[in-house]
Amino acid sequence: TKFAYVKNFELPDPLLPGTYILLRLDGHGFHRLSQDHDFVKPNDERALQLMDHAARDIMHEFKDVVLAFGESDEYSFLFRKSTTLYNRREAKILTTVTSLFTSSYVLNWPRYFPNSSLKYCPSFDGRIVLYPSEKEVRDYFAWRQADTHINNLYNTTFWALVQQGGQTTTEAHATLRGTVSKEKHELLFSRFGVNYNTIPERYRKGSVLVREEVAGHEPSGTAESAPAEDKCATSGSGAEASEVRVEHTQGTKKSKKPKVQTHIQLYHCDVIEQAFWGARPYLLE
Amino acid sequence: TKFAYVKNFELPDPLLPGTYILLRLDGHGFHRLSQDHDFVKPNDERALQLMDHAARDIMHEFKDVVLAFGESDEYSFLFRKSTTLYNRREAKILTTVTSLFTSSYVLNWPRYFPNSSLKYCPSFDGRIVLYPSEKEVRDYFAWRQADTHINNLYNTTFWALVQQGGQTTTEAHATLRGTVSKEKHELLFSRFGVNYNTIPERYRKGSVLVREEVAGHEPSGTAESAPAEDKCATSGSGAEASEVRVEHTQGTKKSKKPKVQTHIQLYHCDVIEQAFWGARPYLLE
Amino acid sequence: TKFAYVKNFELPDPLLPGTYILLRLDGHGFHRLSQDHDFVKPNDERALQLMDHAARDIMHEFKDVVLAFGESDEYSFLFRKSTTLYNRREAKILTTVTSLFTSSYVLNWPRYFPNSSLKYCPSFDGRIVLYPSEKEVRDYFAWRQADTHINNLYNTTFWALVQQGGQTTTEAHATLRGTVSKEKHELLFSRFGVNYNTIPERYRKGSVLVREEVAGHEPSGTAESAPAEDKCATSGSGAEASEVRVEHTQGTKKSKKPKVQTHIQLYHCDVIEQAFWGARPYLLE
Amino acid sequence: TKFAYVKNFELPDPLLPGTYILLRLDGHGFHRLSQDHDFVKPNDERALQLMDHAARDIMHEFKDVVLAFGESDEYSFLFRKSTTLYNRREAKILTTVTSLFTSSYVLNWPRYFPNSSLKYCPSFDGRIVLYPSEKEVRDYFAWRQADTHINNLYNTTFWALVQQGGQTTTEAHATLRGTVSKEKHELLFSRFGVNYNTIPERYRKGSVLVREEVAGHEPSGTAESAPAEDKCATSGSGAEASEVRVEHTQGTKKSKKPKVQTHIQLYHCDVIEQAFWGARPYLLE
Ligand SMILES: Nc1nc2c(ncn2[C@H]2C[C@H](O)[C@@H](COP(=O)(O)OP(=O)(O)OP(=O)(O)O)O2)c(=O)[nH]1
Ligand SMILES: Nc1nc2c(ncn2[C@H]2C[C@H](O)[C@@H](COP(=O)(O)OP(=O)(O)OP(=O)(O)O)O2)c(=O)[nH]1
Ligand SMILES: Nc1nc2c(ncn2[C@H]2C[C@H](O)[C@@H](COP(=O)(O)OP(=O)(O)OP(=O)(O)O)O2)c(=O)[nH]1
Ligand SMILES: Nc1nc2c(ncn2[C@H]2C[C@H](O)[C@@H](COP(=O)(O)OP(=O)(O)OP(=O)(O)O)O2)c(=O)[nH]1
Ligand SMILES: O=P(O)(O)OP(=O)(O)OP(=O)(O)O
Ligand SMILES: O=P(O)(O)OP(=O)(O)OP(=O)(O)O
Ligand SMILES: O=P(O)(O)OP(=O)(O)OP(=O)(O)O
Ligand SMILES: O=P(O)(O)OP(=O)(O)OP(=O)(O)O
Ligand SMILES: [Mg+2]
Ligand SMILES: [Mg+2]
Ligand SMILES: [Mg+2]
Ligand SMILES: [Mg+2]
Ligand SMILES: [Mg+2]
Ligand SMILES: [Mg+2]
Ligand SMILES: [Mg+2]
Ligand SMILES: [Mg+2]
Ligand SMILES: [Mg+2]
Ligand SMILES: [Mg+2]
Ligand SMILES: [Mg+2]
Ligand SMILES: [Mg+2]
Repeated sequence: TKFAYVKNFELPDPLLPGTYILLRLDGHGFHRLSQDHDFVKPNDERALQLMDHAARDIMHEFKDVVLAFGESDEYSFLFRKSTTLYNRREAKILTTVTSLFTSSYVLNWPRYFPNSSLKYCPSFDGRIVLYPSEKEVRDYFAWRQADTHINNLYNTTFWALVQQGGQTTTEAHATLRGTVSKEKHELLFSRFGVNYNTIPERYRKGSVLVREEVAGHEPSGTAESAPAEDKCATSGSGAEASEVRVEHTQGTKKSKKPKVQTHIQLYHCDVIEQAFWGARPYLLE
Repeated sequence: TKFAYVKNFELPDPLLPGTYILLRLDGHGFHRLSQDHDFVKPNDERALQLMDHAARDIMHEFKDVVLAFGESDEYSFLFRKSTTLYNRREAKILTTVTSLFTSSYVLNWPRYFPNSSLKYCPSFDGRIVLYPSEKEVRDYFAWRQADTHINNLYNTTFWALVQQGGQTTTEAHATLRGTVSKEKHELLFSRFGVNYNTIPERYRKGSVLVREEVAGHEPSGTAESAPAEDKCATSGSGAEASEVRVEHTQGTKKSKKPKVQTHIQLYHCDVIEQAFWGARPYLLE
Repeated sequence: TKFAYVKNFELPDPLLPGTYILLRLDGHGFHRLSQDHDFVKPNDERALQLMDHAARDIMHEFKDVVLAFGESDEYSFLFRKSTTLYNRREAKILTTVTSLFTSSYVLNWPRYFPNSSLKYCPSFDGRIVLYPSEKEVRDYFAWRQADTHINNLYNTTFWALVQQGGQTTTEAHATLRGTVSKEKHELLFSRFGVNYNTIPERYRKGSVLVREEVAGHEPSGTAESAPAEDKCATSGSGAEASEVRVEHTQGTKKSKKPKVQTHIQLYHCDVIEQAFWGARPYLLE
Repeated sequence: TKFAYVKNFELPDPLLPGTYILLRLDGHGFHRLSQDHDFVKPNDERALQLMDHAARDIMHEFKDVVLAFGESDEYSFLFRKSTTLYNRREAKILTTVTSLFTSSYVLNWPRYFPNSSLKYCPSFDGRIVLYPSEKEVRDYFAWRQADTHINNLYNTTFWALVQQGGQTTTEAHATLRGTVSKEKHELLFSRFGVNYNTIPERYRKGSVLVREEVAGHEPSGTAESAPAEDKCATSGSGAEASEVRVEHTQGTKKSKKPKVQTHIQLYHCDVIEQAFWGARPYLLE
């Protein structure tokens, strides 16, 4: 038709080749949503598991996502550097991932919140960031995990003061103003008998979803934390169970690579130290 | 932390001021989804109403969307030219709208498909296109509506041949190859007694959601089509009922403009001719 | 060769269709260059004429540039909205224009500065800005011309205080601090007998280069200023003489439009008021 | 003024951090320019030296350019990965470099072509390409140098056939059609007694400008080719003489790094093999 010229206003938006595509989603207004749906404070296991579930669905659908990290109302996805998904068209990648995550979150909500139906529509914003080298990718995940730690330590102490210590939220904020990490640990222990390190790893470390090549990979992580992670990773609900699948690790048709068995494994392990990455060189190729 | 520098790799993505922002969503792989969930062919009223419902939710949430057009598995949203939503950041606008639409689609699915639960996660791609002038915006909507008409005429005839005419799909395609519009009309009438013009306007014209300024606006559309549209627009399910709300028509806080009553009205009217636009100058400012 | 893949890292950069492309050049470090080459203060006619010469060369080479405006060390070029120059590739347009302008500036320097050879390489930065509508284009040129006026009034008064009034530059700045337009006019007149309005229009209004369709167009501008401009435009050096050429006004090959005689005309006229634009509707199509 | 809002249409254009910025310039229509100014065929030493001169000026002005490669009418410039020149604004970097190169080319023309003045304005297009890793940067320079070789071998043989062999250009093209490298070498030797490897390295390898850290760096290149390159590099005209300067190797003011003596050295050496890069790790940091 004579109107079809308007299609020409759609401009190309290819992402630079040779870079790592990082896509981060974040819940829109989840401060309110978490209140309106009575999320446990400071961490609601159900809410976090639902996030993990949706992230897992992303990794099942988009085979070039090799690693994901979740905390609070956000999730980050790392695509392999060589991905040619949608010819690396930015909007296409960004919207299909954001949409599918949202869809899974809403569809699976009743599974995690059987007694509390959604009062309105949850939604997420999304963005893509390009990282040129391995260093930046590792630092990205370290950044998110450090953020998890800082927030969780603060929130844990804060809500202990409020819920167990009887402080108002204003008082609790005042109590914590200016305190450093060590002081929060001590406060938790001395006043509430809580050893921070015994808090579930999920809350302290966030969720790490890895597309793992099978053939006997060790559970990763630093020596001391590995067992706990491993347990956590395999003892979860059905939703968390990892499945072993035979997959091409690369999407291109002409790839003659032998099929590598991969499965998606959930950890709550350290991603800041070298151990995690050293055990999985394929994540960064 | 020393990792926070990775945030600097997020680049600004402001959309050119003074242009119309058009955002189009399209169902991802809905060919398969429509089959797996037994959508009626060629048009499934429930599926289309669900799309309209989700689109309406977008317009309730994003006050700068003044017009939307839906057909098949797609929906287009027009923002007012002067919108400063998220400072016109492209990814932010694109993802929050795509995500909310998806969320509403999934959350409201049971309302339109009470007997058929979702077998997997529906998702949508999204894109933003900028149009510099009124002409291109009008031509954009004309383009989508002309597309609606062409597809619907073809599909209606095609499925009549298959479902009522007993042809295989291959035969039906062959029958229609090379036919022009007029011949399809005649075929429908002569072989199946169907007067194409009596097919529901929703199928022939698509869905038009308008943020209308109240104060007695006529239902719009050309004279002959208006009543039908109006009926259609008001006789639908509760989900379609238009609500009158008092809203600021612009999002900026300092706006001293008097509040204008607006409501979101659903039509299945012509948007190619001048009448629709002439009656609503505020859509294009 | 096996290295050719690196070409794929070149990304497309088409400019949005249907918008006005505005390209502005500005001398790099001309504060120093003007001192090192003894430019007359505050306005050096030779320097300004050289800028006009280079701008004219741009318009001879790029037929889709319909209007240009120069002042100080900068020049702005307006492309017709429908231009398809280099398929609207941003870097290609931006660099070829910037480069040709620079080339002409250097090559023609001796013509305007016969007694002062270049001590080092002059250069220019360049940028492209898109404007969606006529209003913004007109306001753009008004912005530059208002800037010309403000700067010239200030500089003229400032250098009068220094050169004729014997003030130091520090004193002159102090004298002018906080003064409004009217006070500068009065100061010029009362202390130096200078009627600002008799200063050459080139200095007060800047340079306006118009690709004009011949067939007897009036010299444009407001009634009172037109004659002066016209004189200025035709009594300049050879470099400024306008030439009448037969040109296609549009670059597309299939254009069946009759050839329109155009020439490039230099004015120093008002571009803020309606008169200039009203007389030349073809500038904005 | 009330017009200043138009400035807001200028959009940010930062280049992705952490990537190598590669800027390539190419003469606009130099096929014609080389003919109109009687460039020697297939290689005009003066023209190539003028290009080198302009490139050297770029490196003197932009300290973050660490390497450049020239051939024919083009030059490529590599910025250090960490450059913050103009806050990595794309248009600013692209235009100032393109403009300065052009300026130097025109200003220095008479030095290399004392008997042939410019008949019109030479100009260059420019583009920026981002490369994420060392590999791609090395492959980029290999790509350009392989191109130099292929073109030069063809052109050398072609013009030998025409100028010495008496063939028409059409005949020469026909003679060469389908020939491989080895056959061209043999043809040159058997028919014209030319040993291709004795042709000046400048023509066979192009020009390599390196910002070298002093402190006794060896002339680089593979063992066998180094002496020839070195000679070539130091026996040129005055324009080619390398100068030793004391420079900060990084532009940031707060840098506490000790000053490193650097100079800009011209080679015509191999950049495809490892030797060149191995000897200069600082080029890629
Ligand atoms: N109670 C509770 N709240 C949570 C949990 N996970 C996330 N939230 C809440 C706490 C924060 O208020 C909010 C996440 O912070 P954000 O910075 O993303 O803010 P929010 O989503 O409200 O705004 P945004 O739209 O992202 O700018 O979600 C949880 O497990 N339990
Ligand atoms: N039976 C039926 N099918 C519908 C209806 N609305 C949409 N569809 C189907 C028909 C088409 O196969 C499909 C829409 O066409 P598209 O070009 O968007 O294809 P699809 O979504 O499969 O692929 P895509 O991911 O968009 O590239 O959705 C409906 O009301 N009834
Ligand atoms: N004496 C004299 N100076 C002029 C004339 N035209 C321009 N200039 C000088 C005055 C200003 O210092 C300078 C233009 O101001 P800009 O803001 O463009 O500064 P400049 O080019 O130094 O820095 P830039 O590289 O553009 O950021 O050029 C003239 O006709 N006579
Ligand atoms: N005779 C002669 N010609 C040269 C020399 N260096 C470059 N050229 C000419 C040969 C080619 O025709 C031309 C460079 O090829 P290009 O592909 O850049 O073409 P051209 O600049 O004409 O078009 P363009 O504007 O870049 O698309 O310059 C030289 O040393 N001697
Ligand atoms: O934490 P972020 O990156 O989402 O940062 P923000 O402060 O929420 O900013 P925005 O979401 O608007 O980019
Ligand atoms: O109809 P569109 O615009 O979605 O066109 P398409 O052929 O589906 O292409 P894509 O969705 O890949 O842009
Ligand atoms: O006057 P402009 O637009 O050149 O503004 P500026 O302050 O010089 O800024 P820049 O040239 O760095 O965009
Ligand atoms: O050799 P290049 O990269 O200049 O390639 P081209 O064929 O000249 O294309 P263009 O200059 O138009 O990008
Ligand atoms: Mg945010
Ligand atoms: Mg959030
Ligand atoms: Mg958050
Ligand atoms: Mg599509
Ligand atoms: Mg679809
Ligand atoms: Mg569709
Ligand atoms: Mg500037
Ligand atoms: Mg300047
Ligand atoms: Mg200036
Ligand atoms: Mg080219
Ligand atoms: Mg060229
Ligand atoms: Mg070339």
